[in-house]
Amino acid sequence: MKLLSATATPYGRKVEIAAIEKGLIDRIEVVPISTAPSAPHAGLARENPLIKIPTLVLDDGRALYDSLVICDYLDTLHAKAKLIPQSGARRWEVLTLHALGSGMCDAALLCRYEQVLRPDAFRWPEWISDQMKKVDSAFDWLEANVEAVGDPAGADVDLGQISVSCALGYLDFRFGYIGWRASRPRLAAWFAEFSKRASSQRTMPS
Amino acid sequence: MKLLSATATPYGRKVEIAAIEKGLIDRIEVVPISTAPSAPHAGLARENPLIKIPTLVLDDGRALYDSLVICDYLDTLHAKAKLIPQSGARRWEVLTLHALGSGMCDAALLCRYEQVLRPDAFRWPEWISDQMKKVDSAFDWLEANVEAVGDPAGADVDLGQISVSCALGYLDFRFGYIGWRASRPRLAAWFAEFSKRASSQRTMPS
Repeated sequence: MKLLSATATPYGRKVEIAAIEKGLIDRIEVVPISTAPSAPHAGLARENPLIKIPTLVLDDGRALYDSLVICDYLDTLHAKAKLIPQSGARRWEVLTLHALGSGMCDAALLCRYEQVLRPDAFRWPEWISDQMKKVDSAFDWLEANVEAVGDPAGADVDLGQISVSCALGYLDFRFGYIGWRASRPRLAAWFAEFSKRASSQRTMPS
Repeated sequence: MKLLSATATPYGRKVEIAAIEKGLIDRIEVVPISTAPSAPHAGLARENPLIKIPTLVLDDGRALYDSLVICDYLDTLHAKAKLIPQSGARRWEVLTLHALGSGMCDAALLCRYEQVLRPDAFRWPEWISDQMKKVDSAFDWLEANVEAVGDPAGADVDLGQISVSCALGYLDFRFGYIGWRASRPRLAAWFAEFSKRASSQRTMPS
């Protein structure tokens, strides 16, 4: 199968970390794709009409998206502990944590587009502060509830942990100046630990 | 349980249609919430740090989001055909269709914010045309693959169908002027049929 993705996308990184953690990465050919709202990839709409990455193309030609769907699919291909628990209270906790990490990335990416793609004259500072309010409030929630995220050094990580780690990694990568760690020491320690994982090291954006 | 939502949000409508179709709506108290990036709801961050609707608050206080997670949770509460098939090729088809509908809404909502929230001087026409390219390409895909979406008049609808219908409904509601039907007659017929369902009628945005 082929994973259409890019090294800088936190959503694609999430899929790669999941695949590494579950021993599936050797079955996936990662195909680098460059796409953005102002420079959409020419052929990508054939696989994914939303012209977004990551998109997984199976050997029979079927295309799967978005990143959550791809990770859910990967979960059927391995015999380790599931990325997404199949039932019970932890399923909703993991899926909601996944949505939290994903929403942090959505907000950060909108800020990135505002600061980089949009011409200077059309930038609206309030848009950035409104999106960053979401990121801040998510940071605060994670600091207060870091135990709920789960052990960053355990043998098995789940999709909630992976999603949160990719959000924090993306914020460090593109918004290093916000300095979120000073007021969130517990989350900072959690992330330092998670970042030691081989799957995180191997997929670090640069 | 309480569903924090609003009548105009296609993501909240999706949850309501799902709950009506599966006979669960009487167990849900819909609590109207007004929130937007430039006017975030004051208390919502306590339940959902991303300050987004819909958010489902369970009777024990746990909060679930986003809309896909809520629908997945609702699927454990009824004995009818599942909104999301539990396995097999149709699972990936339904989840990818769900993502397609959801991505159409994301693109349309970004255009709405650009046209309504953002001050005139900071509006960037290319942003709207780029997002609308995604919507257009999704329309074309749906027209070419309408059989894959599934029977709009069947006894059981799934989350792919509901998501697509909410996207089309939102586009009619906010972007009626784009006139997508002329070049997509098959999709138009599918949507006309789906819109006859009581669940769709009862949740029509206005």
